[in-house]
Amino acid sequence: MNPLSTTGLKNVWAEYEPDLLAVEDCLLQFSESTTETIRDVTTHIIRSGGKRLRPLLMVISSRLSEYSGSNMVLLSAVVEFIHTATLLHDDVVDRAEMRRGRPAVNQLWGNQSAVLVGDYLYATALWMATGIHNHEINDVLTLACRKMSEGEVLELMLDNNLDATEEDYLKVVECKTAALTAGTCRMGAILGDLDTAGKKALEDFGYYIGMAFQVADDTLDYMAREDRLGKTLGKDLSEGKMTLPLLHCLAHSSASRREQLVRMMGQGEITALQLGDVLGLMKETGSLEFSLEKAMLFMRKAKQSLDPFPDSSHKQNLLALSDFIIERDL
Amino acid sequence: MNPLSTTGLKNVWAEYEPDLLAVEDCLLQFSESTTETIRDVTTHIIRSGGKRLRPLLMVISSRLSEYSGSNMVLLSAVVEFIHTATLLHDDVVDRAEMRRGRPAVNQLWGNQSAVLVGDYLYATALWMATGIHNHEINDVLTLACRKMSEGEVLELMLDNNLDATEEDYLKVVECKTAALTAGTCRMGAILGDLDTAGKKALEDFGYYIGMAFQVADDTLDYMAREDRLGKTLGKDLSEGKMTLPLLHCLAHSSASRREQLVRMMGQGEITALQLGDVLGLMKETGSLEFSLEKAMLFMRKAKQSLDPFPDSSHKQNLLALSDFIIERDL
Repeated sequence: MNPLSTTGLKNVWAEYEPDLLAVEDCLLQFSESTTETIRDVTTHIIRSGGKRLRPLLMVISSRLSEYSGSNMVLLSAVVEFIHTATLLHDDVVDRAEMRRGRPAVNQLWGNQSAVLVGDYLYATALWMATGIHNHEINDVLTLACRKMSEGEVLELMLDNNLDATEEDYLKVVECKTAALTAGTCRMGAILGDLDTAGKKALEDFGYYIGMAFQVADDTLDYMAREDRLGKTLGKDLSEGKMTLPLLHCLAHSSASRREQLVRMMGQGEITALQLGDVLGLMKETGSLEFSLEKAMLFMRKAKQSLDPFPDSSHKQNLLALSDFIIERDL
Repeated sequence: MNPLSTTGLKNVWAEYEPDLLAVEDCLLQFSESTTETIRDVTTHIIRSGGKRLRPLLMVISSRLSEYSGSNMVLLSAVVEFIHTATLLHDDVVDRAEMRRGRPAVNQLWGNQSAVLVGDYLYATALWMATGIHNHEINDVLTLACRKMSEGEVLELMLDNNLDATEEDYLKVVECKTAALTAGTCRMGAILGDLDTAGKKALEDFGYYIGMAFQVADDTLDYMAREDRLGKTLGKDLSEGKMTLPLLHCLAHSSASRREQLVRMMGQGEITALQLGDVLGLMKETGSLEFSLEKAMLFMRKAKQSLDPFPDSSHKQNLLALSDFIIERDL
């Protein structure tokens, strides 16, 4: 990891430590269940860590909107549970072996438990959220959930699909990632009772930071430093995921090189030698630079979305977080 | 099917035909999607039919509560979508081959699509429901969803579990089936703005009819007439499902016969000869009579729950529906 950006993120995290610790307590509290499998699976995945990006967005958005009541912590746990539920189902769909550096739930407890405990977390999150009795919150959250599930199906349809376009890819990213981050930041603004323009500005910030995060993540899949833990380079290629670097490279390669790429797609495993070839191709077509530039464009738009807000430490922290989104792991 | 009870149900259905046709329209309308797989899978499972028991409960409960506005139709579609989402996930968990007389979605489109389109239907249902902007409805519905998903996990934990008790079984039925039927009937009362006692009475009716329905269903798995379509006798036994007839039989058999039963549990397939042996055993222990009597007890409690309501055609129809719940398929 780039020590600078890690330090940057750590500083941001440190500023909200009491809030984020309260979120962890809330997550563990609602992971309790008299049903053993629910408790075991939920506690396992919650204790496995994760970036907690969505709770952090919820907390800073709320505080920027001058709200710091208990619903900020509750909704932070809600968005993390929703994200966690999609991870459980994703791991079943992708037959994942590892998650957050530990064996995936589907490996330890089987697909059945992963599907059903995912459902439970999702249901619990919506039950927690609707308990706040705020229609605006409910509308934002359920619409985000609907878009997310649509994005998951869209992504599945694009796997190994050579007709996939950059537009298709961006639609998937918008649905599966940006819808929830946009909704999260908007909910912070709703809690703080900001005016229409304020809510829109924070929603836009969340949208663009979600887009930047996912596009950067999909690019890092090909270019992250090898000592990065818990991730295998070229995983998306081996799974036939039509992400931006691959789409760009396919579109800008000769017919013979395109064929070479297609043979490797969805193979299940990519050797270091094959990955070297792919990275060579992507260097020729400039696909990684193209993708990173796209991520940075979204990052700049995220930052611009905050223009209407006067300067404050919370605003500075959202700006610092935007930089981290791109710089992590490079 | 018993022609009498079929006629009885048809008469009830006929009385609410315009409402139920509006529900079908609503289901198909919200099955539309620009995402091909979502549209195809949803339309397939919605067009495959099903008893539409939950929409019927929603419609009659609403009308008994003197409400007949558009939210009655919308919430009928909501509860059917939620039920459908759990069927999609159930079929993945149980590796089902058929559903409603047609190949199951997991067979036609794969487990991945079944999981993700299930998520989409679930998210769509909650987005539709929260759009009504009624906190009481939201609270009832999300609590029911949470209980349902807990029931699904509980059921999975009981599979092939020889320590399972009748109490465990009833908890599963309560969560996975009765929670949604109870919530459905209560939502009808909420739409009609009944007082606390009226809401409780309809909720109780929904609870007991759900209990009666599921216990009868689990008993019919062993005793339905062989010409009944789309269902294989002894399926629960072959899957190691610890339902009431099996639990009772295990508890009241000699050690050697108990061993004989245990050998057949979760085998994946039961021959006609083996099924004959099991039915012989269940005859000796009176397990099917015991289970049916339990279902009838719940059915009588369902009917009693309606005592506070003055006589009306809607009340008569709920009473007729209660009879059908037990008598179907015998």
